[in-house]
Amino acid sequence: MKLASLKHGRDGKLVVVSNDLAWCADASAIAPTLQAALDAWDRVAGDLANLATDLEHEAIPMMRFHERLAAAPLPRAYQWADGSAYVNHVALVRQARGAEMPDSFWHDPLMYQGGSDGFLGPRDAIPLRDEAWGCDLEAEVVVVTGDVPLGATRDEALAAIRLVGLTNDVSLRNLIPGELAKGFGFFQSKPASAFSPVFVTPDTLGDRWQDGKLVGTLMVDLNGKPFGRADAGADMTFDFGTLIAHAAKTRALGAGTIIGSGTVSNRDADGGPGKPIAEGGLGYCCIAEVRTVETILRGAPETPFLKAGDTVRIWAEDERHHPIFGTIEQTVEAG
Amino acid sequence: MKLASLKHGRDGKLVVVSNDLAWCADASAIAPTLQAALDAWDRVAGDLANLATDLEHEAIPMMRFHERLAAAPLPRAYQWADGSAYVNHVALVRQARGAEMPDSFWHDPLMYQGGSDGFLGPRDAIPLRDEAWGCDLEAEVVVVTGDVPLGATRDEALAAIRLVGLTNDVSLRNLIPGELAKGFGFFQSKPASAFSPVFVTPDTLGDRWQDGKLVGTLMVDLNGKPFGRADAGADMTFDFGTLIAHAAKTRALGAGTIIGSGTVSNRDADGGPGKPIAEGGLGYCCIAEVRTVETILRGAPETPFLKAGDTVRIWAEDERHHPIFGTIEQTVEAG
Repeated sequence: MKLASLKHGRDGKLVVVSNDLAWCADASAIAPTLQAALDAWDRVAGDLANLATDLEHEAIPMMRFHERLAAAPLPRAYQWADGSAYVNHVALVRQARGAEMPDSFWHDPLMYQGGSDGFLGPRDAIPLRDEAWGCDLEAEVVVVTGDVPLGATRDEALAAIRLVGLTNDVSLRNLIPGELAKGFGFFQSKPASAFSPVFVTPDTLGDRWQDGKLVGTLMVDLNGKPFGRADAGADMTFDFGTLIAHAAKTRALGAGTIIGSGTVSNRDADGGPGKPIAEGGLGYCCIAEVRTVETILRGAPETPFLKAGDTVRIWAEDERHHPIFGTIEQTVEAG
Repeated sequence: MKLASLKHGRDGKLVVVSNDLAWCADASAIAPTLQAALDAWDRVAGDLANLATDLEHEAIPMMRFHERLAAAPLPRAYQWADGSAYVNHVALVRQARGAEMPDSFWHDPLMYQGGSDGFLGPRDAIPLRDEAWGCDLEAEVVVVTGDVPLGATRDEALAAIRLVGLTNDVSLRNLIPGELAKGFGFFQSKPASAFSPVFVTPDTLGDRWQDGKLVGTLMVDLNGKPFGRADAGADMTFDFGTLIAHAAKTRALGAGTIIGSGTVSNRDADGGPGKPIAEGGLGYCCIAEVRTVETILRGAPETPFLKAGDTVRIWAEDERHHPIFGTIEQTVEAG
């Protein structure tokens, strides 16, 4: 089952979307918003699934689904907690600045509490007031949970995953060092994230959902050129079950909690930092990583951060090369 | 005007509460929940104020208001961002561990993104799975905002303040050093916060609301004994307008954003760390601070963190010594 929220008020209007993303059906008689559906999942999931089946059979009134009319599936959420599960990415960033990475990073997940009061839709511009802030994309996988009890095990956590999707976790790189030095984590350096037009239930993913990981290539284009083709299923040190259980160690998580994987990142075949796509590598899911690799190889970063007019595309494909979650496609806008 | 949410479903049921907190009136015909009221504030605030006036005149059906039946006014929220505006508190904590505090802390607010997917009601137990985590109370002032535009000035921020209240920002002190060392801020160390039964509009506070600060004593009792009597209006380096503008520097804030002051803390009259109430001082708004003072004065902390059965009370009084926001009154519960 694939779900989306058409732009409408603060919380969007819930629709069920066909597998090929061409059509959708109004689901608001079952639940007016995706948050409402997640709040009452056990009661409404069956009805939503029936609606999805009827939509595939063209047995109900249906509308064309236009990704540009979609809001983030949860236009605002009660929780957005982003992990850093591709520890390779963290190791590289540390290596570039000559800092050692504690060994504990390989068994104790990094996670930060993100702002969730307003998200960007998949086609919304990325507003940027000051290019000196160092605006970056971060292509990530996310899951949405139901209620997760305090102290949930990894298995309980995995069972609480309701939906899977993608995010562009916009980051202001040049604000990060100052904020992290203050010790309280990210705040100004993490403006609103954007999400894929469609979130899908794990069963829809078939073999692409394994052991709490999305398997397959996460596609990232920057200004129309291939920038990242990393495998989201490889080098993910902590699966989503482990990330959710980490988040629930000292508190229950409310339905509609979004948990992020952190920037997807693959090691090169020889174990070293990945190469650009133009050099036969898998590329990158954020600009900071290519700058890190440039620094390691040639002493200084070369790829600039995002500026007004730059475009970012993020998607993942099924076996027929159709986008599974639709496409995040954003332009940076001054202001 | 005073507002509360009676326990009901995930988001409570909105009521208007009388000034003396004895009575309330169902406001759900105007807005079913406090979040719904904040989402449509310009349209509904007048109707809510009229209902409040009718309630004071006993001109409408009214019910007894029982604080034990109240949820947090926002039982869950889209954003909870907590500042650390009483820089004295930060300076003391640093002094105790022999670390210097950067001068920038006096002009650049500290703020962390807190979890907002589920809050404790004013009488709810504080669940504690492990006393070794070092459970602490933190008595703070909070405001709730309407929509705040990206890049809002302090004046725009002040104008966006809809409600004022109190929180017990529960903290797990012994988990903090490890989390902060990882660089991503608080997560497991900040379980669910509790809020005062009632939030009030700034105009209700009269002289007690000045320049974006709550003026007057924040009362804290620990196990039935006076523990803190600090003045919330004194030593607050950053007023709420400044805190909100800081939060809105790189992103808009959605209606219903809760902004916290951080632990209230007063300097002693001689400029040094405050004394316990039993020694004629104003006491403390968290256990960490008394432990810090004990460490500075006598080399080691003496007051233990919270354990099962301990009780915490937090409130603020009007000129007739009636609680303005009701009382947070919680017992720590194992499990």
